[in-house]
Amino acid sequence: MSGSTIAPGRRVTVTVPASTANLGPGFDTLGLAVGLYDTVEVEATDAGLDISVHGEGEGEVPLDERHLVVRALRAGLHEAGVSVGGLRIVCHNSIPHSRGLGSSAAAAVAGVAAASGLAGGEHPTGALDDDTLIQLSSAFEGHPDNAAACVLGGGVVSWTNIPVDGRSAPEYHAVAVPVHPEVSATALIPDFHASTEAVRRVLPSDVSHQDARFNVSRAALLPLALSSYPELLWEATRDRLHQPYRAEVLPVTTEWVNRLRNLGFPAFLSGAGPTVMVLSTSSVDAALLDEARSRGIAVLETGVGRRASVEVG
Amino acid sequence: MSGSTIAPGRRVTVTVPASTANLGPGFDTLGLAVGLYDTVEVEATDAGLDISVHGEGEGEVPLDERHLVVRALRAGLHEAGVSVGGLRIVCHNSIPHSRGLGSSAAAAVAGVAAASGLAGGEHPTGALDDDTLIQLSSAFEGHPDNAAACVLGGGVVSWTNIPVDGRSAPEYHAVAVPVHPEVSATALIPDFHASTEAVRRVLPSDVSHQDARFNVSRAALLPLALSSYPELLWEATRDRLHQPYRAEVLPVTTEWVNRLRNLGFPAFLSGAGPTVMVLSTSSVDAALLDEARSRGIAVLETGVGRRASVEVG
Repeated sequence: MSGSTIAPGRRVTVTVPASTANLGPGFDTLGLAVGLYDTVEVEATDAGLDISVHGEGEGEVPLDERHLVVRALRAGLHEAGVSVGGLRIVCHNSIPHSRGLGSSAAAAVAGVAAASGLAGGEHPTGALDDDTLIQLSSAFEGHPDNAAACVLGGGVVSWTNIPVDGRSAPEYHAVAVPVHPEVSATALIPDFHASTEAVRRVLPSDVSHQDARFNVSRAALLPLALSSYPELLWEATRDRLHQPYRAEVLPVTTEWVNRLRNLGFPAFLSGAGPTVMVLSTSSVDAALLDEARSRGIAVLETGVGRRASVEVG
Repeated sequence: MSGSTIAPGRRVTVTVPASTANLGPGFDTLGLAVGLYDTVEVEATDAGLDISVHGEGEGEVPLDERHLVVRALRAGLHEAGVSVGGLRIVCHNSIPHSRGLGSSAAAAVAGVAAASGLAGGEHPTGALDDDTLIQLSSAFEGHPDNAAACVLGGGVVSWTNIPVDGRSAPEYHAVAVPVHPEVSATALIPDFHASTEAVRRVLPSDVSHQDARFNVSRAALLPLALSSYPELLWEATRDRLHQPYRAEVLPVTTEWVNRLRNLGFPAFLSGAGPTVMVLSTSSVDAALLDEARSRGIAVLETGVGRRASVEVG
């Protein structure tokens, strides 16, 4: 049991952005927050767990200790060295689930950020600093690209270190990449779910050295393109490490990525899909977006997302 | 034959930096100019070719049309649409040859920049712009990392596009990466030559997907570390795509890379070696450098290099 107990009645409201990962060449590395937000209200209570979900995921996710926001909250409280008698949690979800928009990472960040806010402190998100929020929230999915983008907002480069002892937990790290003010983000969201696990399973164990260095060069270019050379985003979003292998299991997504790219728009598979993300300084062709809508694909012009934030009260 | 002929007696002096390539994870992509310079004086004459070399390469390189500076000069004159009756060329070389310090790229850039200067124009390097200098000079070796660093100075991210028609020439591109003012470069130069071809031959045709994405993340991080987070240079120079395979053919280099890295210095194989490069905000351990010298390894604290420049007259 931890040192201090948070007084019942203390409340925080956490806002967390959706995010897109990989950005083409940066498999498990590059991430970007997008302007679509979940809000989670958390109140310390005397005892028990009362959780409700409104919006995306309502009626689908377990309303008990298995809920990812709750698990992340517990991890955050433990890290901050505080405890609660009970919790009342209300989730207002706008980020669609299993679409490649980082809803799980957002839930994990919401939980640890809420714990951080409940525990207090000077930091914008409370008692825990950004590095700790990234470490704790990344551990749930095992890579930090979405979680770091959600914590820091804007773009991120992330990486993972696996300790050689085989026992210590992996270390998750990230740095922020400022995004050029003219870059906007547009999501094309097909009406079906994709399992990250299933979509990872189609990746090969080996790739050619040539393809590896192809991605190395574009991944090195992408942060510069995002911040300073948006006209290079098309080149910088080229990929040979995951999208070619996923084309067969995500044919509709692949069709739209290709159509957009062939018109000059920097489009790519968002995370493990099925969402298509476009990062561009020019508006995506309106007729094309209308056609997408007519085929059951939701179009969201979200822009770039702000960092996770915590408000007390 | 080109439009105008350059008046005999017109002279330019070109200064070009050495460069280091790969920088750990950025195989064929990342480059950095280092503060060690060759100078080439070129004068248009009535007829003939008179070339002399002082310093590095003296007595080793062919003093005729096969000389790389001459070949690059011819390509530059052709591109600029001008011609000369004859040429007098004097090379003052400080960049050691076949050590992984970009001497060939420097010679190619010197040639095209000299042609650009002879042809005149408003640009700092004469008639040809940076993109053209990079394209022409990269074509001699087939990848733009050293050449772009030599043209632009400081750090670069470069990439290559191979047209699918199988006939058009590859396109070479690069953008500059500003380098944090506290980053210094130190070269440890063993007393033997390494052939880029031979050291490329030991690379495998395939690598694991895991190693590919390991390098993707560090290559994405390195430009940010160079410009804004020099404390991350050690992490950002980690590599699994070429140095592990080259360890057996470059054992002395590998020993020094490892010793330096185990002391916390961001060291890596410079290009195809045998030079070891260290990019660091702190001075490399003096006792270690003395030991290197006592083993016949030259130590040069060069700092980061300036861009290629052309002076008329």
